[in-house]
Amino acid sequence: MTRETISDDTHGVVYEFAPEMEAVRTVEPGTSLTFETRDSLDGVIQEEDDLLDEIPDEVNAATGPVAVEGAEPGDVLRVEIENVRLAEDRGRVVTTPGFGLLQEGPEIEAPFTRITPVEPGENYDDGRPRIRFAERSIPADPCIGTIGVAPAEDAYSTLVPHDHGGNLDTNDVTTGSTLYLPVYQPGGMLAMGDSKAVMADGEMCGTGAEIATDVDVTLDLIEDPEFPLVRPLIDTGDHWKTVASAETMEEAARLAHRDAVDLLVAEHGFDRTESHTFGSLVGGLEISQVVDPLVTVRNAIPTEHVSSPF
Amino acid sequence: MTRETISDDTHGVVYEFAPEMEAVRTVEPGTSLTFETRDSLDGVIQEEDDLLDEIPDEVNAATGPVAVEGAEPGDVLRVEIENVRLAEDRGRVVTTPGFGLLQEGPEIEAPFTRITPVEPGENYDDGRPRIRFAERSIPADPCIGTIGVAPAEDAYSTLVPHDHGGNLDTNDVTTGSTLYLPVYQPGGMLAMGDSKAVMADGEMCGTGAEIATDVDVTLDLIEDPEFPLVRPLIDTGDHWKTVASAETMEEAARLAHRDAVDLLVAEHGFDRTESHTFGSLVGGLEISQVVDPLVTVRNAIPTEHVSSPF
Repeated sequence: MTRETISDDTHGVVYEFAPEMEAVRTVEPGTSLTFETRDSLDGVIQEEDDLLDEIPDEVNAATGPVAVEGAEPGDVLRVEIENVRLAEDRGRVVTTPGFGLLQEGPEIEAPFTRITPVEPGENYDDGRPRIRFAERSIPADPCIGTIGVAPAEDAYSTLVPHDHGGNLDTNDVTTGSTLYLPVYQPGGMLAMGDSKAVMADGEMCGTGAEIATDVDVTLDLIEDPEFPLVRPLIDTGDHWKTVASAETMEEAARLAHRDAVDLLVAEHGFDRTESHTFGSLVGGLEISQVVDPLVTVRNAIPTEHVSSPF
Repeated sequence: MTRETISDDTHGVVYEFAPEMEAVRTVEPGTSLTFETRDSLDGVIQEEDDLLDEIPDEVNAATGPVAVEGAEPGDVLRVEIENVRLAEDRGRVVTTPGFGLLQEGPEIEAPFTRITPVEPGENYDDGRPRIRFAERSIPADPCIGTIGVAPAEDAYSTLVPHDHGGNLDTNDVTTGSTLYLPVYQPGGMLAMGDSKAVMADGEMCGTGAEIATDVDVTLDLIEDPEFPLVRPLIDTGDHWKTVASAETMEEAARLAHRDAVDLLVAEHGFDRTESHTFGSLVGGLEISQVVDPLVTVRNAIPTEHVSSPF
């Protein structure tokens, strides 16, 4: 398959998802592309002596945006993530003063940088690259940290997540998953970056192993969907995962669960009370990240209980 | 193996974990027992016309407590959970006014009861019982909702979780897991109940499929542990999971992550900053429940990165 590449260097990046965005490229529905993404810190941290004294004004560069021809508000943008490939020889995990679940102080040093070298997959029988952390070796499991579309009304820096996507830091946004995003503006305007070679649910210190990647995706459009989408939704193959961001984890959990209730109502003809109670038995709430200025929670419903809402 | 049974009917139940508790039985370390537990609502809800207008003053009856000979404050009580067996023909999932992640109102009916009949395992090739919810069939995955010991200072109703355990509503407290609890009082004083036939992470409506169970456990004691325990810890076989309860999910996440940092420090000789950043790459935060007056979050570290802290 011939894929056009959307490059952070030649096409450009954004540091904000805004209602008005200028597309770097417009493609037909069904187009396969490769997005080249730089690491969330724009390459500034290359060695352990490179420290991040504060969160930069511009962070989580998102390559794009790419418009999809014919996308109109109310449609759903389907992003099939075929492959997230590591594109440099190291990641970096950092602490920064005032950021993260455990703040600096007697217990946690900030700023602090740990370089996590990549060991190529060809060194291993399973062909999977590893990340080194001190003497430990961790299988890479690359995910896209920041991915989103032009929002409905307000502009959001790429540091925060919201209904348009953005800094979701959700490790299910990975090879083999399909991400569904609401279209709020003509063309949708997809941009992505801020990949991690590996990241724990929670992203407790404020980063995963931040790294440049090449991301193969196929973009498609669901026009006038039967199931109206107001927030990101992920099909991992095993689960449908609603994704909600809010000021508190309680509120994010409430939104993620409410969206899951909507899925169950649409699938089974349950009423909302039945869906609410059924949803207390199967699947369940998961934590994406607890450190970005807004936090992100998902609710995972096994595909045996939800086929497809679209 | 001959197992003595600790029965809710003949030995009794408690509705509070208090510093001073009277043991219904004292056993040697290494003793295998079966705890008979009643459902969290004391059998009051048997049909869908039985509604729960409010949370009863006494809820989550915990069978016991059982003292372990020689247990002293600072020790760790090891509870190997060999089997959690369904002991009645139905579970029940309920909403109650003012309780749960989505409150009553235009969208959610409360009170509401759904009886979830048990389909015996012998009807299925895999021998596993199912729970019916309307036309849906869900494989049973029984867990113990409330399990704990006598706390250090304050008394806690069995409705709430805290450092002593209590209403953790954590579905990893299940067949095949080993739960480690801090000993705060002589004898430890273990009691358990409030099992669910199945429960989603989050327990969003306020209950799982509440059901009576017979629980086979072996109790053991770790005296003067190298790794001092201040909160519950679970070995699921795949993961070591710290378990923390607090007023907010953010605070529970902070405590669960801090405990995981302690595990990583003890295992690898990492300093706390290294453990904090390493813990942002592997395993991750999980949600136990968001509905009990205090909420419960865990941090799961794969056993490949933590062998055993004891």
